[in-house]
Amino acid sequence: MRNHETINIALLGLGTVGTGIIKALRLNADKQFDAFGSNIEITGILVKNRLKSRSIEVQPELLYDNYEQLTTDRDCHVVIEVMGGIEPAKSIITDSLLQKRHVITANKELMAKHGDELLELARENGVHLLYEASVGGGIPLLGTMSQFLRFNDINSITGILNGTTNYILTRMMADSMDYGSALREAQLLGYAEADPTSDVEGLDAMYKLMILSRLAWGTNVQTEHITCRGVTGMKTQDIDYAKENHAKWKLIASAEKDQWGQLSLSVGPELIPEGHPLYAIDNEFNAVTLCGNIAGAITLSGRGAGDMPTSSAILGDLSYALTHPVITLPLSMTMKPKQIIHM
Amino acid sequence: MRNHETINIALLGLGTVGTGIIKALRLNADKQFDAFGSNIEITGILVKNRLKSRSIEVQPELLYDNYEQLTTDRDCHVVIEVMGGIEPAKSIITDSLLQKRHVITANKELMAKHGDELLELARENGVHLLYEASVGGGIPLLGTMSQFLRFNDINSITGILNGTTNYILTRMMADSMDYGSALREAQLLGYAEADPTSDVEGLDAMYKLMILSRLAWGTNVQTEHITCRGVTGMKTQDIDYAKENHAKWKLIASAEKDQWGQLSLSVGPELIPEGHPLYAIDNEFNAVTLCGNIAGAITLSGRGAGDMPTSSAILGDLSYALTHPVITLPLSMTMKPKQIIHM
Repeated sequence: MRNHETINIALLGLGTVGTGIIKALRLNADKQFDAFGSNIEITGILVKNRLKSRSIEVQPELLYDNYEQLTTDRDCHVVIEVMGGIEPAKSIITDSLLQKRHVITANKELMAKHGDELLELARENGVHLLYEASVGGGIPLLGTMSQFLRFNDINSITGILNGTTNYILTRMMADSMDYGSALREAQLLGYAEADPTSDVEGLDAMYKLMILSRLAWGTNVQTEHITCRGVTGMKTQDIDYAKENHAKWKLIASAEKDQWGQLSLSVGPELIPEGHPLYAIDNEFNAVTLCGNIAGAITLSGRGAGDMPTSSAILGDLSYALTHPVITLPLSMTMKPKQIIHM
Repeated sequence: MRNHETINIALLGLGTVGTGIIKALRLNADKQFDAFGSNIEITGILVKNRLKSRSIEVQPELLYDNYEQLTTDRDCHVVIEVMGGIEPAKSIITDSLLQKRHVITANKELMAKHGDELLELARENGVHLLYEASVGGGIPLLGTMSQFLRFNDINSITGILNGTTNYILTRMMADSMDYGSALREAQLLGYAEADPTSDVEGLDAMYKLMILSRLAWGTNVQTEHITCRGVTGMKTQDIDYAKENHAKWKLIASAEKDQWGQLSLSVGPELIPEGHPLYAIDNEFNAVTLCGNIAGAITLSGRGAGDMPTSSAILGDLSYALTHPVITLPLSMTMKPKQIIHM
């Protein structure tokens, strides 16, 4: 398990999360050997623009704008992908797995849409493909399900999986802002992107729900089978109605398995009454309740996004990848062909 | 990792939790191979009275009232201890570790008071000693800290760790019951034991806090250095005061590390204001906020006790023990001799 060599890491992306990873590694440098069982070193960083000024100091010779060049110049054992989007992330991850490198990714869209084939490829090549950071930022949702609840049948997954819309709804409720003003404020604070479509239309929450559902039930639910509504239609009257009824609007992502094993997945605004565990989850926080048939309901909450929480999930995965062998589980665990999907 | 032999398990104790484990194994029998990577079989059960009538059917020849006899007759690879109390649990666990059997225990008092020596013994013998079920029932607190937050410095641990007192306080708040009536109701419902001292005086919460603190900081804090108050002094006037101030009394267990690395641990009733994440944690539920220096605050909540939640934690540990090698970490990870304790 432990070796005294240095583990070389290629970091793909140096935006908010990539920068956060480097900051976190420097901040807790004294924990590296304990957490990773080895010394680790970032030996190459893939960026779009090598000349762009950065908020952290990085040796310029580590920066590459070409993945082939990076891997030609630099030996690497582990790839951390924090670029986002489908391509070139998918091709690079595919290549990395074929080269028998462990891959850690925060890419929810990629893992939602192509996770099954990438996980299969990782399995075939005997390497880890870990993606805790793709759902719920620093909240260890995937790990909890795949490790601690492994002997539970998951009955349902319900929660707030998108921080941007939760921030917008919180501001609309608390300060009687209209939707447009709350969105602009979220953008100013960096909680919403310039093009907020994926967040406000519910797609981001839907991708995360797809990832959680595949892990829980081994089933790939296609987007066309998921009811998905965002928050763009939220009116001041809706907010007033919620207040009158001592409730709050939350964008709820929900996956349930009925008694016949049929799954239904949906994303949409729901009224959450006072006293409900999700009622107090405000601003950019996320929370998810996992219902297991033995454990009962377990709720996990925390910051669902941000450089540091996401880095914590990535470095937790790195720790796991470097200190645990790849377990080749029988296919029955990850895929259940008998599962009936009906929506 | 996987082997096609059957793993033999000795179950020590057939009270509420022991019975729950057998029920859970039967309920999710189809998940056994996936979760454990092997077939498992309970080959012996240690009980006080072999002739007592049981709420579940168990083959009488599996029951032993003598541990030596059990291990003489029955080969076992793993020991699950759910008897509670210091002795004979400590001697039996010590013997099991020396015999190189993995041990899984729900025993909080034992792990709080003697966990360091038992964990050291497990390390020396290259076997797992896992104890998720000793804290927070089905909530994976230990696993979250030791696995997912391994690269975080834990700044604080705060929460509701005792379901009995939370039930009593909830009933006193919601229904203006006095302490005595609420306690009697908790006893009738099985949430409090006939002798409720350990729960109501805060000792149970203190043991759990000691276990969490050792895992977070590698430090054994002695009970005499922990401020510990229970709920027995709670008066109707205190309840009225909380209500007037839109707050609730909760028995809060709290461990904090200050900027100089000094730890302070305490257990006692605290006023929790509306909107606080712990405000909505009522009845027998538990919730804990773990503050990591990278992940930020992560709150986990769920049923803190009960046969099924506790069994879920034990079977999660069993899954881990049977599918992961024992990692011999450098001593620096589990014990930090430089840690200053000052209280």
